[in-house]
Amino acid sequence: MRLIEQFVERVKSEQLALPIWFENNALKVLDQKKLPFQEEVYTLFTVEDLAEAIKAMTIRGSGAIGICGAYGVLLAALRSQGDAKEIREAGALLKSTRPTAVNLMKTVDEMLTVVNGPRDEVISKIEKKAVEILERQLEFEYQLGRHGASLIEDGDTIMTHCHSGALGGSGYGGRALSVIRAAHEQGKQIHVYTCETRPYLQGARITAYELKKFGIPYTLITDSMSGFCMSQGMIQKVVVGSDRVSANGDLANKIGTYMHALAAHQHNIPFYTATSSHTIDFDTESGKYIEVEMRAADEVTHFNKSAIAPEGTQALYPSFDITPNELISGIITEKGVFKAPYETNLKELLQKESFLQK
Amino acid sequence: MRLIEQFVERVKSEQLALPIWFENNALKVLDQKKLPFQEEVYTLFTVEDLAEAIKAMTIRGSGAIGICGAYGVLLAALRSQGDAKEIREAGALLKSTRPTAVNLMKTVDEMLTVVNGPRDEVISKIEKKAVEILERQLEFEYQLGRHGASLIEDGDTIMTHCHSGALGGSGYGGRALSVIRAAHEQGKQIHVYTCETRPYLQGARITAYELKKFGIPYTLITDSMSGFCMSQGMIQKVVVGSDRVSANGDLANKIGTYMHALAAHQHNIPFYTATSSHTIDFDTESGKYIEVEMRAADEVTHFNKSAIAPEGTQALYPSFDITPNELISGIITEKGVFKAPYETNLKELLQKESFLQK
Repeated sequence: MRLIEQFVERVKSEQLALPIWFENNALKVLDQKKLPFQEEVYTLFTVEDLAEAIKAMTIRGSGAIGICGAYGVLLAALRSQGDAKEIREAGALLKSTRPTAVNLMKTVDEMLTVVNGPRDEVISKIEKKAVEILERQLEFEYQLGRHGASLIEDGDTIMTHCHSGALGGSGYGGRALSVIRAAHEQGKQIHVYTCETRPYLQGARITAYELKKFGIPYTLITDSMSGFCMSQGMIQKVVVGSDRVSANGDLANKIGTYMHALAAHQHNIPFYTATSSHTIDFDTESGKYIEVEMRAADEVTHFNKSAIAPEGTQALYPSFDITPNELISGIITEKGVFKAPYETNLKELLQKESFLQK
Repeated sequence: MRLIEQFVERVKSEQLALPIWFENNALKVLDQKKLPFQEEVYTLFTVEDLAEAIKAMTIRGSGAIGICGAYGVLLAALRSQGDAKEIREAGALLKSTRPTAVNLMKTVDEMLTVVNGPRDEVISKIEKKAVEILERQLEFEYQLGRHGASLIEDGDTIMTHCHSGALGGSGYGGRALSVIRAAHEQGKQIHVYTCETRPYLQGARITAYELKKFGIPYTLITDSMSGFCMSQGMIQKVVVGSDRVSANGDLANKIGTYMHALAAHQHNIPFYTATSSHTIDFDTESGKYIEVEMRAADEVTHFNKSAIAPEGTQALYPSFDITPNELISGIITEKGVFKAPYETNLKELLQKESFLQK
């Protein structure tokens, strides 16, 4: 049985969660916006419906969005019975849903390399390619988890922030949660502190949902409590995801990450980010060149759509912050763990890449 | 016109907010739990009703609770037509509402010193004493504000956490907001960042409400955003209240304060606490001897009474944290601003106290 088939079997038998899967010539998508209170699964028959679901944040996380790109193209191939023009149009539509999602762009482009030829061959080549991409994502999560879990000791309590988990990837553990899940599967007795992650509460809603599914003991705290918990010796490691890592190892990640890193540094607690080697942006010298996106502030003045502040209150919503490299104990990737000095050590990745491409 | 009368006149004419006031032989109390969406005022005719209101957190903050102690005794004196036994019983009931509220204990005891003598004289002595106590609280806030405002420069953006304001005191500005309000009244152009203060949202609800009332421009942020805002040069000063200060200047204050202090220190931003000289606990050597109260975790797993995490989620709720003295740039009191080394400099307060008592 293929790796992916084994995994899907296991997910089904253990009633775990998948962000997206292919079944009876249609795509099944779990609505992440309704978690943890409703586990609603949509059946999507067209690329147009899938594009809407991506735009509406029903599916999120770079790994999961990449899989959407792959299976979206497959959906178009089946519907059009292998028509190259229609498949290419579907690819363009998928790419337009998230113009900044590098992984989506790359995946769709890879899918479109096998679009030429006799129609029935095109369909089978596209199907094979989609499975290959899903399997590659799963293998990435296994490798990331294996490298990261080597840093986790039996008895550790690990803190995480935001959601960097299974539903943002293939369903195994995404990024930070691949590390945590792998340590748990190795039989290490671990406990997780998940920060609620205001304003959108991904930590309280989705990370907690996954930890519960995986049977990993966890405790919810507000973002403001990590410093206290660290000062009391309640936390031994911090593992967070990443939106982007610059060439010198500075980390862009969900707003609040920086303050956890400052507190961890103060208490000599190792602070790791789990990321894909492809997220490391060698064209960006340091964090100061990363522009922080400011979002609509309604999320801050409201909570579950009800106001929490007086009418007319102005608010700010920087979507992420920058954690400088000196606060980061290690960058966990699928190719290994990198430590300071990052400017030099991360370059090894570039060399490995070019070696692999030869 | 007496200081207090001028103040009350102004509050009424400007439609500001008072936590508690005496009117037509009854107590008027603003329900702080319903702010900022409803400004509901209750009329209390008995000490029993007042005791309930204190227990239900309708009124909170040590200054405001002290005023309740004073006016509660007055209410009992009027109802009992000056009966010493009934007044003493009322005092005991008031003290039982918050067994750890030092200011409430002291105030009630002070009120009960004038309970003996002819009944009509008792009533007028008690009335005089209650006004004296309210006026002393108001004078405390003016002095605290004056000393603190000397640290604020024209153009400063000041960050605060939780609620340490007018409704916790006499209605002028309590502690942290006395500093902010005094600077504003001196004509300094200031802007305030108020942290929402999870889990109970005092910053979003009550601090924002007061700032709006006072006409001071403000912006709401989540607790996790202060580090980012500081790194961007958006904040020039931090002023927070205090639950307790130990002899060496360590600060116990609402959960999250410590992380703001770490971030401020990282960015060389002055971090002040505004407090009463009576809050400084010379019997507690340092913060490590202050026990942090753990509260029921429902506030963390819920938001406005609706769940935000999966069913069965465990959570922690430490009600405050400890900020070590090396992160504190100054302790603002009604007697002046104290700076490091706190162990030596705070003792001046003890000497002033004993001088005043001679």
